[in-house]
Amino acid sequence: MDVFVAGGYTTKFGELWNIDFRQLGVEAAIGAVKDASLELEDIDAIYVGNMGASRFAGQDHIGALFASELGLDCPAFHIEGACASGGLAFRSALLDLLSGSSKNVLVLGVEKMTDVGISTATTALAGASDEEWEAFYGVTFPSLYAMIAREHMRLYGTTREQLASVAVKNHSNGSKNPNAQYRNKLTIEQVLHSSMVSDPLTLMDCSPISDGASAVVISSSTKSNVKVIGSGHAQDSLALHDRDDITTIKATRKASEIAFKQSGINHKDIDLIEVHDCFTIAEICAIEDLGFVEKGMGGSYSENGNTQLDGELPVNSSGGLKAAGHPVGATGIKQIVEIYHQMKGNAGERQVKNVRYGLTHNVGGSGATSVVHIFENIRR
Amino acid sequence: MDVFVAGGYTTKFGELWNIDFRQLGVEAAIGAVKDASLELEDIDAIYVGNMGASRFAGQDHIGALFASELGLDCPAFHIEGACASGGLAFRSALLDLLSGSSKNVLVLGVEKMTDVGISTATTALAGASDEEWEAFYGVTFPSLYAMIAREHMRLYGTTREQLASVAVKNHSNGSKNPNAQYRNKLTIEQVLHSSMVSDPLTLMDCSPISDGASAVVISSSTKSNVKVIGSGHAQDSLALHDRDDITTIKATRKASEIAFKQSGINHKDIDLIEVHDCFTIAEICAIEDLGFVEKGMGGSYSENGNTQLDGELPVNSSGGLKAAGHPVGATGIKQIVEIYHQMKGNAGERQVKNVRYGLTHNVGGSGATSVVHIFENIRR
Repeated sequence: MDVFVAGGYTTKFGELWNIDFRQLGVEAAIGAVKDASLELEDIDAIYVGNMGASRFAGQDHIGALFASELGLDCPAFHIEGACASGGLAFRSALLDLLSGSSKNVLVLGVEKMTDVGISTATTALAGASDEEWEAFYGVTFPSLYAMIAREHMRLYGTTREQLASVAVKNHSNGSKNPNAQYRNKLTIEQVLHSSMVSDPLTLMDCSPISDGASAVVISSSTKSNVKVIGSGHAQDSLALHDRDDITTIKATRKASEIAFKQSGINHKDIDLIEVHDCFTIAEICAIEDLGFVEKGMGGSYSENGNTQLDGELPVNSSGGLKAAGHPVGATGIKQIVEIYHQMKGNAGERQVKNVRYGLTHNVGGSGATSVVHIFENIRR
Repeated sequence: MDVFVAGGYTTKFGELWNIDFRQLGVEAAIGAVKDASLELEDIDAIYVGNMGASRFAGQDHIGALFASELGLDCPAFHIEGACASGGLAFRSALLDLLSGSSKNVLVLGVEKMTDVGISTATTALAGASDEEWEAFYGVTFPSLYAMIAREHMRLYGTTREQLASVAVKNHSNGSKNPNAQYRNKLTIEQVLHSSMVSDPLTLMDCSPISDGASAVVISSSTKSNVKVIGSGHAQDSLALHDRDDITTIKATRKASEIAFKQSGINHKDIDLIEVHDCFTIAEICAIEDLGFVEKGMGGSYSENGNTQLDGELPVNSSGGLKAAGHPVGATGIKQIVEIYHQMKGNAGERQVKNVRYGLTHNVGGSGATSVVHIFENIRR
């Protein structure tokens, strides 16, 4: 069965004080349905990716909430997989289409993190780690990724300047994305000298707390030039300390292998990737674990400009989580909308030329969940 | 494609002070895999139904948690739909099988509600209602269902004795279920004179706060005598006040119609049903909205003994949510395990004779989500 991304829409990401959780989701949902030239009643099922509304907004039952807000009575699911909630919602929707149960499925990723309700953002996010063996003892996400960064430095000689080059490149891309949370450019010096969060990661090595929503309609009946040709999803241990090598996310390796095998294409065919850069080190590990760069070489590969918009392998043309923002449940869908816009030729100042194949990579926690999708531009 | 329930397992339900959230889930998961005569490595995907671990245990990323605890790296999803989380997880797993992506899927429902973490159980459960328009103003679930009961009394002359008859019957069934939270029998008088919770619902009209887990393995390759022949899922407005008639759950009507159409059988063919009796009034509405009893006649139908184990239509042989307990995410799966045990002839003292067709009905919130499954015993 051929499955297409029939429509996509991303709201502005940022600290959005004047728009609430449900308004954000509705804006993206209606935007994606309109972009697909469909009516709401054409939608057969709804998948909502969200991690934290239970704690941020005191609201569970998120699938029902958005079906209700959109006036639909079709099946609605809430899919949670920490920061990979969006990617998992997309994969669930894909399985629904492949089962033949639905023809047009709305996939919505949404998170409102700056109105803090029942717990702080840092505490809520720590729920993505192993609560009993990590969060309970005070581990936070910056500290988990700082350990990964330290080990990557020890094993491969990765430098703080190389980490910083990821942030500099992503802010440069973000400056060209009107929906990005941060549109200011950065220098290596600014990254190195911003406040230390968890050594060696400074504030500018970290993605922000964000509000935002992103939605796609995927379809087996409504065609577009953006076809889904590969889907891989795998798990690793929830706790970082249970892994043989904390610089390698095995789930990403496995998910990538499955997605590439399904797609029938090779790494060299890929023109553009959106990866999960929750911290600068995460982007370096991602390009390695996805198989684009030899293990240990991600830092120098980035520093040498290969991942820039005009480089060998443009990475995170949207600005990534770092500059575009990271409203957790929305991130995995925003990555797909970015590939969709690039393949439609609607990416404005950040347009990459001749995108035939694109890949998205969405991670939950410190790598316990990884989901990879590959897309083909069939009209190129 | 033929899909079978290849194995099932339910833990003891109750206030389980000496067993934690992850132990509960692991016990049920391993129990179901063993019951299917499979090994853990035969499992291709994991779907976990859970509503409240984020607030009860400070733990999100539940799919990854249980994959990690079971030592598996296959795809794992956390599916949330309030009290229908279990039913939705089962439906998601079914779509996964029908897509051809998996052959053996583990579906785990789990909830640990008595170790209260970030918010109280009542507050956490209110997240299943419309937070902005219901919970925020102090509405709780007993009060929502009390309004439904009052209106059912006004429209159809339903009596408190009729409501009480549901609790009496479910406690009688629960007394025969070794895993039930409450195994004491009740009288009508005891229900009527227990503490008033929300007029007209007394404490004995309400299902309890519970810990427990239940799991099934569903399969397209591992056969059993229990075949899935219908799946329906629909939504209604999240808030009760947005409905034309609060005594009718439209989502249940639609889900039931879809499931029956898919199954090719009629209401008269059904030998046993497990319905969502979070409150006694909910069971009365359920047998009406599912189409077994004319609207308004559910109260007298129950009072006259038709829903007892030896009645015309045995309802909730497990003891239902009322007596067996209601660990939210586990409930939808426990219902399916009950039908499975009945069809296997393993239901002990509560065995219903000659069960050929069975139905499960799982509701989220005050009826915003409803999911119905129909099963056939092909070896009868």
